[in-house]
Amino acid sequence: MTKFVYFFDEGRKEMKDLLGGKGANLSEMTVMGLPIPQGFTVSTEACNDYYAQGKKISDEIKAQIEEQLAKLEQVSGKKFGDTEMPLLLSIRSGARVSMPGMMDTVLNLGLTDVAVEGFAKATSNPRFAYDSYRRFIQMYSDVVKGIAKSKFERVLDGIKEAKGVEDDTHMSADDLKQVVEEFKALYKEEMGHDFPQDPKEQLFESIIAVFSSWDNPRAVIYRRMNGIASNWGTAVNVQMMVFGNMGDTSGTGVAFTRNPATGEAGIYGEYLINAQGEDVVAGIRTPQPIRKLEEDMPVIYKEFMEIAEGLELHYKDMQDMEFTIEDKKLYFLQTRNGKRTAAAALKIAVDLVEEGMVTVDEALMKVDPNQLDQLLHPMFDGAALEAGTVVANGLPASPGAAAGQVYFTAEDAAEAAERGERVILVRLETSPEDIEGMYAAKGILTVRGGMTSHAAVVARGIGTCCVSGCNDIKIDEKAKVFTVAGQSIKEGDFISLDGSTGNVYIEDIKTVDPEISGDFAKFMAWADEARTMNVRANADTPRDAAKAVEFGAEGIGLCRTEHMFFDEERIAKMRIMILSEEESARREALSELLPYQKADFIGIYEAMEGRPVTVRLLDPPLHEFLPHEDEDIKILAEEMGVSFESLKETKDSLHEFNPMMGHRGCRLAVSYPEIAEMQARAIAEAAAFVNKEKGLNVVPEIMIPLVGDVNELKYVKEIVVRTVEAVKAETGVDFKYMVGTMIEIPRACLTADKIAEEAEFFSFGTNDLTQMTFGFSRDDAGKFLADYYAKGIYEQDPFARLDQSGVGQLVEMATKKGRATREKLKIGICGEHGGEPTSVEFCHNVGLDYVSCSPFRVPIARLAAAQAAIKNK
Amino acid sequence: MTKFVYFFDEGRKEMKDLLGGKGANLSEMTVMGLPIPQGFTVSTEACNDYYAQGKKISDEIKAQIEEQLAKLEQVSGKKFGDTEMPLLLSIRSGARVSMPGMMDTVLNLGLTDVAVEGFAKATSNPRFAYDSYRRFIQMYSDVVKGIAKSKFERVLDGIKEAKGVEDDTHMSADDLKQVVEEFKALYKEEMGHDFPQDPKEQLFESIIAVFSSWDNPRAVIYRRMNGIASNWGTAVNVQMMVFGNMGDTSGTGVAFTRNPATGEAGIYGEYLINAQGEDVVAGIRTPQPIRKLEEDMPVIYKEFMEIAEGLELHYKDMQDMEFTIEDKKLYFLQTRNGKRTAAAALKIAVDLVEEGMVTVDEALMKVDPNQLDQLLHPMFDGAALEAGTVVANGLPASPGAAAGQVYFTAEDAAEAAERGERVILVRLETSPEDIEGMYAAKGILTVRGGMTSHAAVVARGIGTCCVSGCNDIKIDEKAKVFTVAGQSIKEGDFISLDGSTGNVYIEDIKTVDPEISGDFAKFMAWADEARTMNVRANADTPRDAAKAVEFGAEGIGLCRTEHMFFDEERIAKMRIMILSEEESARREALSELLPYQKADFIGIYEAMEGRPVTVRLLDPPLHEFLPHEDEDIKILAEEMGVSFESLKETKDSLHEFNPMMGHRGCRLAVSYPEIAEMQARAIAEAAAFVNKEKGLNVVPEIMIPLVGDVNELKYVKEIVVRTVEAVKAETGVDFKYMVGTMIEIPRACLTADKIAEEAEFFSFGTNDLTQMTFGFSRDDAGKFLADYYAKGIYEQDPFARLDQSGVGQLVEMATKKGRATREKLKIGICGEHGGEPTSVEFCHNVGLDYVSCSPFRVPIARLAAAQAAIKNK
Repeated sequence: MTKFVYFFDEGRKEMKDLLGGKGANLSEMTVMGLPIPQGFTVSTEACNDYYAQGKKISDEIKAQIEEQLAKLEQVSGKKFGDTEMPLLLSIRSGARVSMPGMMDTVLNLGLTDVAVEGFAKATSNPRFAYDSYRRFIQMYSDVVKGIAKSKFERVLDGIKEAKGVEDDTHMSADDLKQVVEEFKALYKEEMGHDFPQDPKEQLFESIIAVFSSWDNPRAVIYRRMNGIASNWGTAVNVQMMVFGNMGDTSGTGVAFTRNPATGEAGIYGEYLINAQGEDVVAGIRTPQPIRKLEEDMPVIYKEFMEIAEGLELHYKDMQDMEFTIEDKKLYFLQTRNGKRTAAAALKIAVDLVEEGMVTVDEALMKVDPNQLDQLLHPMFDGAALEAGTVVANGLPASPGAAAGQVYFTAEDAAEAAERGERVILVRLETSPEDIEGMYAAKGILTVRGGMTSHAAVVARGIGTCCVSGCNDIKIDEKAKVFTVAGQSIKEGDFISLDGSTGNVYIEDIKTVDPEISGDFAKFMAWADEARTMNVRANADTPRDAAKAVEFGAEGIGLCRTEHMFFDEERIAKMRIMILSEEESARREALSELLPYQKADFIGIYEAMEGRPVTVRLLDPPLHEFLPHEDEDIKILAEEMGVSFESLKETKDSLHEFNPMMGHRGCRLAVSYPEIAEMQARAIAEAAAFVNKEKGLNVVPEIMIPLVGDVNELKYVKEIVVRTVEAVKAETGVDFKYMVGTMIEIPRACLTADKIAEEAEFFSFGTNDLTQMTFGFSRDDAGKFLADYYAKGIYEQDPFARLDQSGVGQLVEMATKKGRATREKLKIGICGEHGGEPTSVEFCHNVGLDYVSCSPFRVPIARLAAAQAAIKNK
Repeated sequence: MTKFVYFFDEGRKEMKDLLGGKGANLSEMTVMGLPIPQGFTVSTEACNDYYAQGKKISDEIKAQIEEQLAKLEQVSGKKFGDTEMPLLLSIRSGARVSMPGMMDTVLNLGLTDVAVEGFAKATSNPRFAYDSYRRFIQMYSDVVKGIAKSKFERVLDGIKEAKGVEDDTHMSADDLKQVVEEFKALYKEEMGHDFPQDPKEQLFESIIAVFSSWDNPRAVIYRRMNGIASNWGTAVNVQMMVFGNMGDTSGTGVAFTRNPATGEAGIYGEYLINAQGEDVVAGIRTPQPIRKLEEDMPVIYKEFMEIAEGLELHYKDMQDMEFTIEDKKLYFLQTRNGKRTAAAALKIAVDLVEEGMVTVDEALMKVDPNQLDQLLHPMFDGAALEAGTVVANGLPASPGAAAGQVYFTAEDAAEAAERGERVILVRLETSPEDIEGMYAAKGILTVRGGMTSHAAVVARGIGTCCVSGCNDIKIDEKAKVFTVAGQSIKEGDFISLDGSTGNVYIEDIKTVDPEISGDFAKFMAWADEARTMNVRANADTPRDAAKAVEFGAEGIGLCRTEHMFFDEERIAKMRIMILSEEESARREALSELLPYQKADFIGIYEAMEGRPVTVRLLDPPLHEFLPHEDEDIKILAEEMGVSFESLKETKDSLHEFNPMMGHRGCRLAVSYPEIAEMQARAIAEAAAFVNKEKGLNVVPEIMIPLVGDVNELKYVKEIVVRTVEAVKAETGVDFKYMVGTMIEIPRACLTADKIAEEAEFFSFGTNDLTQMTFGFSRDDAGKFLADYYAKGIYEQDPFARLDQSGVGQLVEMATKKGRATREKLKIGICGEHGGEPTSVEFCHNVGLDYVSCSPFRVPIARLAAAQAAIKNK
């Protein structure tokens, strides 16, 4: 028979998976001998059982609860539902990790019309008894039955007004009796039945409410955003009430052992005299800073500080504690490792090491890598944000906050930025032609496209805030206006974006630039020491490359060459190249592009100062470079000296049904070897130049994309090698180089042993690999993935977090097969996943040599790689 | 040291891989003691070595050739290059399987200006000697140096005219001397150097020419069409010349031991007195039927017949032989299993069994399954075809021949067919809306689309001839005209199509209907006996289902439900369903579609008479059902009572970047469960009806497409099960049913163990699985696959022949994982590959329960499955 319910003295802090964080810590504190109001925890397994039974608490579990309740009655010396001195309970949820969106707390459970009178008599405090009862009715109605809190507030305000009192604490016992009556009437009106007078019913309904809240939509979304599995379940803690609202010798508060905003050492928190927990949060009365407790109740303060310091030492981390003083007796209601800002996290981690409390490895494990993002991007000023109204929500495509004036074309955006305006570029979707405007913008908002759309990928690469796939807005690009929530936003109007939440505001909200403390460098140096996997960046320009080096990248894992062709002057030549039917004409156009591309590589090599640079040959289908509008085609036709009709026909012939699965990647090089030849020449000539003239020792890694069969690689490699060798002969400069491939087609993984015969390195392109493995395009999946999340079919976005059970199998297979053929094969990952911590850990475990991600995610990857190494020590 | 050259007495017929078919059989006949002009074979490994060395014959191989040449000199008693009585050679290619497109033969090699004089003296026959020399110069120039044969013909004709002779045999020795002189002059003019006078040079140049011809474009195409690997290589046979042109006691001929066109027993063939091999083929003189030899040379004839019969008995198959009579002495130059028509193949196989020459299993192995196609489709009348001109060539998308009048829309085609016209439907590409016209047509020609385009798939399904992806023609669908080879073809003009070759003709070529002999039934019954794997058909209509049963299908492996919605009345309701924003409106439209769908299933169940039927739920993206033209949208908007603009906007919102990877398959059922519900209801109500009313025992297999994760399947399965159970309760009819999934997404293979927890059967959709695994769309791949074939990167079309090394790994993995979870999991394949013999064999080897293919390929699959079983006995 499974044990589903644990008395606090039966648990330990290590039992979080079973008892939830709150329950495990209550057990731990009980065992430590700290003053904890006793109680028991209904386990997470009971929650899973509840769902397995079709949302029912089994008789078995009910019996176990009753059994532990009896024990609690014995320990407390009070009876649940007693009419003289009833045992009152607090019911609180507690999952493995703290999770907003779920039901939180019901206090004072067990009060009924009869019990409240006994309670009044026993405490000789009718005011307190009825205050507790009205609180219970309101909380129960709200969190268990979903009756809006505001309805009760309205009733309460009415009575306060009638009685002429302002502060709740000034209401008399009779006033509160009246509140109770009116609350009960409200409950009946809403629910169609009387407020439950059976304490057991109250208890089980509350437990069910906690279990049910595990699956409410907000909780589901939170889980998806944070990688929490739906089968973890939540525990329920049933605890004897202690009362902070018994008068001026009572109170309640929350405190942190260190400042959670700055990390500064020393106690930090606040408390309220004569109050219950929710009053501190509600903000009706202004709480006192915790240090004031030393004046108010010096003995209690001393005891409190001793316990708080002991807890920090015990847990070896900053603690977030809740406590209540009931008539001069201190109780701890909860402790946990406190949430903190990124800056605080770094300072605390560094301080804990310097105080000798934790080792460097332990400190490294304390910081969530994702949090580092905060340190690198502007954020909204907290106070300013309060005033903003969220009018739409899209995908949090690239983190940070931005505010500025709206522009609808890349050109307008660039011009406005020239004039010194803060610009938000708003587009239906972006395309490579928009690059300039995207670089100029503070923030980017698109109506279409997912987390890995063009806008999202580019924005993350350059560290610009971006909200993508914001279906809430309707855009008319031609009229330069968009509408959202009934309002029209024109060119030049101000909006603000939060790329970390996907929120859109129609105010100009103040942003603050990130502050990087000295702790950052120290902490990251520790991380670099600990990790065994290299971290590179994806960077396409000298500017990106410099940023990457600044953030600690050890090389470039992916330099996309296509973005280099979108400059106005270059794209014209590119288009001529694409639309020429003769190889000779293509070669001529390519020879004009060569100097540009060579100069790009020189700039990147110089920025990287000899670090490895992986250059990917042209990847996208050629039609992406072509003009869309007839007018532009006409201009081009004139330039090329051909008729509009024939040019349009050539363009149309390049149309593809499924461009993602079309004529791109190495397939281009097979059809047009001269393109690969030009690119190989530019890469090689640039390397020869910097090695000779700048004394660098650049070893270019030339990456052939979209290979699915070794013969494709062999064919293109032969072109590359022939060209590079020719350049070496022409220039008289000898240098090393490698030719490898991007592994992004399932078949490449399946035949990786063969491919490794030709490839000198592998780099997993997990964006495309995820698309092909799942069989959906990231650009189109947005339409149905929402349904998938809502219906619990997927819990994670596989484009954000590497799908280890599917795509991961292919990654592992390819790694093994590749190394079976070529033992020292260098293997990395350059998809978006390279900067996502769980994916980085996976890459470490599989044995990859490096991860590569956008420059702004490099610190995250460095820390995640360190954590993966530490876990595997 | 590798042995690269084998004298004929060193080989055996089993050594085909090394010696090629011709070489192995020459060896076999040598060992059998038959009269074979002796010689040696340069092995296929030497050919591979030639390519590996960068197209050079290594010194080692040259030495081995010279060694064997010396042995041949010894055996023949003649010297190569001798000025008295020179050894002359014939050089012939010989790959593992006979392969058109490669260099074939050089005869009389070894003659030079000096040797010819010695030869004339030694034979006392100057006329014969110079005749041989002029033949040699012409053949060598043509096949080794690529100088057009016609240029020599012109010279010859000129001399004949000047001399006033008509027949070659009437030319005198001096005439022929003049021919030799002029031929040599022509050679020098073309090549810039004298005709080679070094016999060794002649020999090695000829061997190189054979090796090189292995990789000429025609050979490469033939290999791809026939699944011949490029690394097989070709052997070269070097053989002593014997002369059929030494006068009236000499001759040459070809013969078959049975009639290759009909299979009729008895010798069949022809010969020419005083001729060399090429004269028989060239058609300058009319050969005599072989039986005439009995009159001309009774002794020779008797010897010939004894040997021929012995060879048939020895090879246990009909033989195709070449022979030469040199001055009353009979020589066999070659024997091989003869090519034959499908009808002949069946008759011979059955006769050989009945004659006791082979076992049933041996007979089954003798027929190429692909050949059976010929028996089921109309073909061009041979004579009529000669008169036709190929004006364009597309993909051989669906076999058979058709001739008729051109129509450019499905409606026009259907109307013309109503009028009794033979119709060829010509379209840029077809879409599901064209179904009616496609059914009405005798043949279908499309400009775009590959072997698995809509047109190709539908045409194969209904057995209609189709040529797809014919880029040679330019079409103007609006003007109802297409142009090809400078000619305009209007509506009503006649053209002919050969769906087995992809050829297009602009004549009305006579076709003949296939004749199915009684041998067919007998032979297929043997195949059914031998095979262990079931064969089903893909069929969407009662008509297809009936055809499938007629061809021996044991069930339906894939019934696509989407085609059912394209009928005029239905599509209107379908469109309303798709474009309704409210679930209730969708449900209403669906409820109107229900009776149609139910009736469809009743028809199919009845046609299948209780055999299993796998029904796939709706698969294509919904936008495929929508009208394209604004005009049609307007009509629909009026019908729906909404504005044109809003309807157009809804339609546009359904646009997808990559529809192949978009909102389709089970993703539709997740978003719109009501669609799956309606379909499950139709399937179940139809089953309840036929089981109750018709006494059938239908067990519907409901297939959920495009599953990539077990949770998708679980979600949709739940809807299906709930619906079917409801129908069972409503109707009071109990019946069995299964719910399974199509495995067509790589991730489904990778997680097949999980998916099998919910799936009661798997059916591999290898079309989509191939697309996703290779990462290219079949609709777009046509553009670059031509380059891939031309550059030797791919040898096979992975959509035609299952890619065993990539996709096959996934199939095998999914089969193993699926059965690890569910031991008795029923597994089949319903992609195009289910009717392709090598793929069928793979499916057998992997352990699949059945293959399913279009009805017209069912006999092929039955025989291929039998052959796979026999091979594995």
